[in-house]
Amino acid sequence: MNVPASIGNDNNTANRSANRSAVVLLSGGLDSATTLAMAQHQGYRCFALAVDYGQRHASELKAAARVSETAGVTLKVVRVDLRTIGGSALTDDIDVPTGGSVGIPVTYVPARNTIMLSLALGYAEVLKASDIFIGVNAVDYSGYPDCRPEFISAYQSMARLATKAGVEGAEIVIHTPLIQLTKAEIIRQGTALGVDYSETVSCYQADDEGRACGMCDSCRIRKAGFAAASVPDPTRYY
Amino acid sequence: MNVPASIGNDNNTANRSANRSAVVLLSGGLDSATTLAMAQHQGYRCFALAVDYGQRHASELKAAARVSETAGVTLKVVRVDLRTIGGSALTDDIDVPTGGSVGIPVTYVPARNTIMLSLALGYAEVLKASDIFIGVNAVDYSGYPDCRPEFISAYQSMARLATKAGVEGAEIVIHTPLIQLTKAEIIRQGTALGVDYSETVSCYQADDEGRACGMCDSCRIRKAGFAAASVPDPTRYY
Repeated sequence: MNVPASIGNDNNTANRSANRSAVVLLSGGLDSATTLAMAQHQGYRCFALAVDYGQRHASELKAAARVSETAGVTLKVVRVDLRTIGGSALTDDIDVPTGGSVGIPVTYVPARNTIMLSLALGYAEVLKASDIFIGVNAVDYSGYPDCRPEFISAYQSMARLATKAGVEGAEIVIHTPLIQLTKAEIIRQGTALGVDYSETVSCYQADDEGRACGMCDSCRIRKAGFAAASVPDPTRYY
Repeated sequence: MNVPASIGNDNNTANRSANRSAVVLLSGGLDSATTLAMAQHQGYRCFALAVDYGQRHASELKAAARVSETAGVTLKVVRVDLRTIGGSALTDDIDVPTGGSVGIPVTYVPARNTIMLSLALGYAEVLKASDIFIGVNAVDYSGYPDCRPEFISAYQSMARLATKAGVEGAEIVIHTPLIQLTKAEIIRQGTALGVDYSETVSCYQADDEGRACGMCDSCRIRKAGFAAASVPDPTRYY
């Protein structure tokens, strides 16, 4: 397939990837699978990191395993039991809303991206990887505070001071290639890069076989994205 | 005991504590036990958080349980298996050095304070707590990058943007009351506040009963601290 040179690029890209390793946060969802494909397309040697935070939708982790196997990258799964501290419909016994939501929804997991980036930062230090990719998105982002560009920028400044690499003058750069894309643009670019979205699971309450409810915020955004991209939706619903 | 009003205060203190809750990171070591006593002395309702990151010195966690029980605070233990990503003598099968070290030592756990603060941030959001206390120290700090004031300050800026509280205009404030104190000053202030240091474990390779080696960096710094403070050292060595 003919892939336009601009696909999957981001502000931090130019000539950076030669002989570099990157940690890619992989949830098993549509966005992170696309992010991994973009990082590989940019030439990074990629190491996938999934965080098992006690989420109700454990089928996400199975999807992360499928996606990383197809991409030919090593997947590490770090277990962090966020159920201990509670506070989200994604980890606790709170109903997932199906009618759209206003403001920050109950599916927000407190400090989730902060925690996941911190684990990626630690893993990058261990690997001596210079780059981290995370598929956050500020357009179709469900109102989570830790998906905004200003959060990522502040995280980058903090990471510079947190790490051995930073102290020694080498910064670990955080890439967010999806941050300004619509869901339809993400799907179009991922499709051009050969991402098989049938391997991914986005639903907040997918069943054990990775079939989706079709009604939660995440399903609604995904479904509308395939429609807007005019790409056939391979999602299996129950 | 007559406790001077200045003890345990910090830049973020003035009249802040009324009716406020704080998450206090508690490792079971000397520094975090002192930090908890200071936070209580400032009037915060404290919630202790220990992070079980697969450390070799699990007797730390038993110490955290003793310290929080004596202080009358609830302790939550969040398990994060950092052994999955490796990279430190404190989690891996690497010898702990006993002869002092130059630069960033092998006992450095990649991104540890970043990860622990992120978990504390998530827990603070769940509790609607307004403050976080962490016993980092920039004086006797063994060269870890994530113990420096500039790291904490950058973390604070990031946390402002990461959280629901921040988005709604209420900042979660991070306190580091020990950051500019020598080990002797920490011990003197903690002793004035009634901290029972026999409950604490600082050793990187303590045995199951919490007895210390007396030779690792952490033991050496602690031992010298008691001597410099002219406070009897209650540490049990094996």
